Amino acid sequence: MNIAIVGVGLIGGSIGIRLKETQFCENLIGVDKSETNQKKALQLALVDEFRSLEDALANCKVIILTIPVDAIMVLLPQILDKVTDQVIIDMGSTKTNILNLISDHPNRGRYVAAHPMAGTEYSGPEAAIPNLFKDKMMVYVEAFKSDEDAFELADSITEQLEMKTSFMTADEHDMHTAYVSHISHLTSFALALTVLEKEKSQGRIFELAGSGFQSTVRLAKSSPEMWTPIFKQNRSNVLEVLEEHIKQLQHIYDKIESEDYDAVHKWIKKSNKIKRIIK
Amino acid sequence: MNIAIVGVGLIGGSIGIRLKETQFCENLIGVDKSETNQKKALQLALVDEFRSLEDALANCKVIILTIPVDAIMVLLPQILDKVTDQVIIDMGSTKTNILNLISDHPNRGRYVAAHPMAGTEYSGPEAAIPNLFKDKMMVYVEAFKSDEDAFELADSITEQLEMKTSFMTADEHDMHTAYVSHISHLTSFALALTVLEKEKSQGRIFELAGSGFQSTVRLAKSSPEMWTPIFKQNRSNVLEVLEEHIKQLQHIYDKIESEDYDAVHKWIKKSNKIKRIIK
Repeated sequence: MNIAIVGVGLIGGSIGIRLKETQFCENLIGVDKSETNQKKALQLALVDEFRSLEDALANCKVIILTIPVDAIMVLLPQILDKVTDQVIIDMGSTKTNILNLISDHPNRGRYVAAHPMAGTEYSGPEAAIPNLFKDKMMVYVEAFKSDEDAFELADSITEQLEMKTSFMTADEHDMHTAYVSHISHLTSFALALTVLEKEKSQGRIFELAGSGFQSTVRLAKSSPEMWTPIFKQNRSNVLEVLEEHIKQLQHIYDKIESEDYDAVHKWIKKSNKIKRIIK
Repeated sequence: MNIAIVGVGLIGGSIGIRLKETQFCENLIGVDKSETNQKKALQLALVDEFRSLEDALANCKVIILTIPVDAIMVLLPQILDKVTDQVIIDMGSTKTNILNLISDHPNRGRYVAAHPMAGTEYSGPEAAIPNLFKDKMMVYVEAFKSDEDAFELADSITEQLEMKTSFMTADEHDMHTAYVSHISHLTSFALALTVLEKEKSQGRIFELAGSGFQSTVRLAKSSPEMWTPIFKQNRSNVLEVLEEHIKQLQHIYDKIESEDYDAVHKWIKKSNKIKRIIK
């Protein structure tokens, strides 16, 4: 069996590393519009060779889409038009719009919507790493709409990646990811800009940046090419959580301004409940 | 030489571990008002024994204050009243108010204001760890107001902790820490509350929490007993940076709401400049 990975960057490249490691497929074909990325990916041996999308479709049983969500919106319907018995898996970070777009497609059953809850703040082929997915969660969205054999094949790849699995509706998925992933990126971007602005007048400001700052700001290294489309495709959920987050910050601003330190103490103590949830 | 550590928690306990490791002093005395903490600290061998503050003052050459900044505001003037040739070092996270408070004290020279830029989100004696300070920055504030022998002794402890050093005015220190430490904690607390609120109606929300969320939210485990006084003592700087941060978030809210995705892309790209600064 041949497998194609469309978009050989952090996610696609890391899948490539693992599938070559387990020798799960005969030929691992990369598809990437950037020649620079093709060269880097071949140097790093993330895939066996690069082909055009048409070639990949003609020669592979499985096509994995690991490209930004706006590109998935364009490419997925075109690919489904040409599908016979292949399996198409998308690994995008938003699902509602994508699933709405192809819900009535005659080849809907050949498509599996998946989202690996794994990543780093880096992008491109050189960001690909071994074991990126190990013990992380693969979320399947509207899996019941995929043909049984298509889902089974997608899930056997998830197994190769050593991931746990979860099943959700598109609405659940997009709302949950807005809360536990998209907002984290927005706060990091905003935090980076807050401090970078100040640095212009206070050059030594980063001398004091410790591990706490690094931890809250590291996601601000994430790529605008990946994240702008996510905020676009998940606009209403992102706006909802952003509004709530700004309210929380405005609340604590008011309490510090009015010197109501009992309220500040209570607010922090309440937030400490996060200990229940994260290690 | 005997050394006393007042407040044997994360910072005090980690100093204890290192000073015992290097056998820098004869007797390492702990002072702590909590009997539970005293027991834990002795079990963990963070100090040799516990004594009253009076006893510690009478028997030690160096007194290190590793207690919340509001407690330093109360205790430091009382200790300076009784000092003869001892050296008093405070390790608090804010400096302007503390330094103003004792600026005219006749024993001002025996005091060294220091802030180790190191820590974790955990607190108490069981949070103390080896090598917490290694290669981190010790910031001295208004060091020129300390007697030379007092500063030298404080700096020899910094050397034991294997830290780098930096010198600042109180204003610089409090402004810089607001930007690279205090705001990170505020955003983490606010992020935790944003998601915890939503969890009440959406119990499965944390199933998807990945490493990005963990990274931006981990500081929300920090203690309200330590952080409320920091926001109080550094109120004006904290309000300034919080206002700027809310503005950044409101800006990106407006751009996503009006679907100006070119502006969103630019905003993210600008924040990526943080790559220059953090690894």
